[in-house]
Amino acid sequence: MKLFSLLLERIIDRVNVNLRGLGFDVRAYVRVMAEYRYGGCSFACYGLSTYHPIHLQFDNSSLSGSYFLGRCKVRHSVLMRSDIRGDELKKKGQVWEIGDIRIPLYHDEIITIRNSFLDSTLVHSNSHSPESPEEFHIRNTVAMPYANIHGAPIEGSFVGTFGTVDLTTIHNCVIGHFAYIQAGEVRHEAFAPGTIFMRSPGSWEFRYQYDTAVLDHYIRHEEGEAPEGVFIDFAEPYEDAFAGLFASARQGVYPAGTGSFVSRYAVKRGDTTIGDNVLVAQRSYLENAILSRGSNAQEKCYIIDSVLGPCCVAAHGAKIVATTLEEKVFVGFNSFLRGTPEAPLTVGTRCAIMPHTIIDLTEPVHIPENRLVWGIIRTAADLETQTIDLDELAAGSGDVRMGRMEFRGDTGDFVRSFRERIERILLENGAYWTGHDEASKGHAQNMKYLTFNIIQPYADGEAEGLYPTIDIRPIG
Amino acid sequence: MKLFSLLLERIIDRVNVNLRGLGFDVRAYVRVMAEYRYGGCSFACYGLSTYHPIHLQFDNSSLSGSYFLGRCKVRHSVLMRSDIRGDELKKKGQVWEIGDIRIPLYHDEIITIRNSFLDSTLVHSNSHSPESPEEFHIRNTVAMPYANIHGAPIEGSFVGTFGTVDLTTIHNCVIGHFAYIQAGEVRHEAFAPGTIFMRSPGSWEFRYQYDTAVLDHYIRHEEGEAPEGVFIDFAEPYEDAFAGLFASARQGVYPAGTGSFVSRYAVKRGDTTIGDNVLVAQRSYLENAILSRGSNAQEKCYIIDSVLGPCCVAAHGAKIVATTLEEKVFVGFNSFLRGTPEAPLTVGTRCAIMPHTIIDLTEPVHIPENRLVWGIIRTAADLETQTIDLDELAAGSGDVRMGRMEFRGDTGDFVRSFRERIERILLENGAYWTGHDEASKGHAQNMKYLTFNIIQPYADGEAEGLYPTIDIRPIG
Repeated sequence: MKLFSLLLERIIDRVNVNLRGLGFDVRAYVRVMAEYRYGGCSFACYGLSTYHPIHLQFDNSSLSGSYFLGRCKVRHSVLMRSDIRGDELKKKGQVWEIGDIRIPLYHDEIITIRNSFLDSTLVHSNSHSPESPEEFHIRNTVAMPYANIHGAPIEGSFVGTFGTVDLTTIHNCVIGHFAYIQAGEVRHEAFAPGTIFMRSPGSWEFRYQYDTAVLDHYIRHEEGEAPEGVFIDFAEPYEDAFAGLFASARQGVYPAGTGSFVSRYAVKRGDTTIGDNVLVAQRSYLENAILSRGSNAQEKCYIIDSVLGPCCVAAHGAKIVATTLEEKVFVGFNSFLRGTPEAPLTVGTRCAIMPHTIIDLTEPVHIPENRLVWGIIRTAADLETQTIDLDELAAGSGDVRMGRMEFRGDTGDFVRSFRERIERILLENGAYWTGHDEASKGHAQNMKYLTFNIIQPYADGEAEGLYPTIDIRPIG
Repeated sequence: MKLFSLLLERIIDRVNVNLRGLGFDVRAYVRVMAEYRYGGCSFACYGLSTYHPIHLQFDNSSLSGSYFLGRCKVRHSVLMRSDIRGDELKKKGQVWEIGDIRIPLYHDEIITIRNSFLDSTLVHSNSHSPESPEEFHIRNTVAMPYANIHGAPIEGSFVGTFGTVDLTTIHNCVIGHFAYIQAGEVRHEAFAPGTIFMRSPGSWEFRYQYDTAVLDHYIRHEEGEAPEGVFIDFAEPYEDAFAGLFASARQGVYPAGTGSFVSRYAVKRGDTTIGDNVLVAQRSYLENAILSRGSNAQEKCYIIDSVLGPCCVAAHGAKIVATTLEEKVFVGFNSFLRGTPEAPLTVGTRCAIMPHTIIDLTEPVHIPENRLVWGIIRTAADLETQTIDLDELAAGSGDVRMGRMEFRGDTGDFVRSFRERIERILLENGAYWTGHDEASKGHAQNMKYLTFNIIQPYADGEAEGLYPTIDIRPIG
């Protein structure tokens, strides 16, 4: 048997032994995806910069399609379409505060990935786990296509297609397809497909559960099958545009405003205009898009026939079609915003689209400014039950229940922390760079001096599809 | 001071301390070349294949423009336009014979390069030094533009522009520009520019010395200056075609016959046709070229408006313009064969053009078959004094002196060993592949499954121009 197949078996066993309590078997998911999605893209890439401590170690793994930056160790794993951006890892000497406790870091944080099969997995940001502030680990874990692992240490778990785990420490869980979990820490839980679960322990909890019929229309994924639905029909035709993206190490020079970074590993098509202080991350897809000052297109987002006003954020995996975002609009992970020329979507200033929201229009819709938006919206009438004014929400007291959404706890804290997170994202991405102040620089400005390095697997023999053992460290 | 500049100082001191006996100072050569040639090309490449043991280690070095294959360790060195092909390194367990002594190898041979500044340096083949059969070392050495280090362990030495050291162990020597040395072993010697020196210790010796006026016309290189002359005027305009060649890792698919390998890192222009079992190595330049069955274009050769008949060899750095090579013609290292449409050159079957031969025509010339060719040839009349029938030479007894050429010793052994070497090159390069027999496969066939990996240096900061520490080993 070839080494690649042996590696898959090893991973399957390691994950299954952790999920036996939940009665979940990853075998058929992994085997189908390995067969269905493997090949096509054989290039991986790592970035080298003086702004990010580097230590990359790859061992007995397949990395095709991956992008690495920073410190990362991958052993006995298959990474298929990953974006691993280590530019927000904690640094040696930095003091990490959890409540009253101040923990100085012994060394630069490192991402470690072991015995895992990660298809479209992003591992951006840093570990928020008090157990290991210096190590962001992903162990014995399987993630399906278009899944996002974001700042979430995870072990012995399964993340379904278009699933997202965000800023959460996860042990032995099954995250169903299109479920979004941001919950501090979870253990031995199975989250149904289409669950949106956000929690600030001790303060508030947000839950939304998609209706099964709606979910099945957009995304379904049965054991032993390939995933299907509107999301797959939307995304798959673009896969060709991404295949081979990492073949060249040449720095791109796409026209853009001052202080902007447009990744050469993003797809830019049609009439696309990029203003100042804009971050266009690798693997984002832009077609006839206008990105105004300070806006950002994060990894694996699609912006097509759309306008992003100043300081708008298209988070990882967001799809934005025939849509105008006014100013400082936040579009969360994997949200699907689809207008048409006849039924365009406009989203008002300071709106926050919750992660995994579906807006798929049959008539023109204008979302008023300052709204929180969730669920499934097809017409203007749907805004009544699935949006709420953020100030009104913050000012309210007690729990809120609207349709399939349920909010418990401190609404003021929820709105404040959401707004703070959006501000932090804009700041870190360099949206507010003044043009001269070093302190206001962010990713958009610091990416400039990145150099790219391309790696490929063995092309034949026992080791076909695997990479040699690679170790890359700073000079000296 | 930047780390790159500190590294140059370190190298200069290490080389100078070894060359103090010869009163030679490399400082001005290194400084001028580092300034003159650095930049432009920032990509290096390494090949990954199941046919070649791999172990690459790079430390405190600049590698831009390099190509690596096999096992190689580079420390504290600057490699600018190197081609390091480790596909003929000796393997563990292999028995190496020197006369009656049989030495089994403890481990796979490795190339080690330390404290060296190598501009256009090839380090192909393996060590023929009895001192270190498992290590092909290059230490404390400076090589200038278009110099070739070929199967030649070397330490404490300087190789001038367009100089070649071939299958020779070299200690503390100065090799002048356009000198060619193939001599078993040399120590503490200075070879004047334009010296052609071949020797089989105990059997024969070939010497040719270029006239200074001729040499200065073609190539001159004064301390503290950039090199000048016809060779530089010829080669420099093509440098742009090579810059950035390593930017992409995509495997090329240039149309070619069965069993042929055309490197994607070779330049192919105009109407170029490539037959079966042909090897076109990286950094070769083809323009309106016909390469017939079994012929090969080695690294840094130029074949322009020319035809190579079956099983012809254009060795490293050979330049072939407006020329027809009939069959099994060998063109040695750095030879310059330049016809014109009005004064074309034809070289007959089984001719052997000595390394560093200059044929620069003012009238049409046809070299009869089976000739050994050397020196400087401009007209048909020059053939009288600078070619000899190989069978006639082999059958002769005693020494031969023709013009500036002097041969001493066993002519039969010289001709036999030259012919054997040509056959071995053809065999190793796969010229004789039958299409089914594994044993007859050579480089042209085995290169097929090579995958390419692109590396770049830091783009800014203290480490600008240097690479991080890199270690690449087989799986496991």
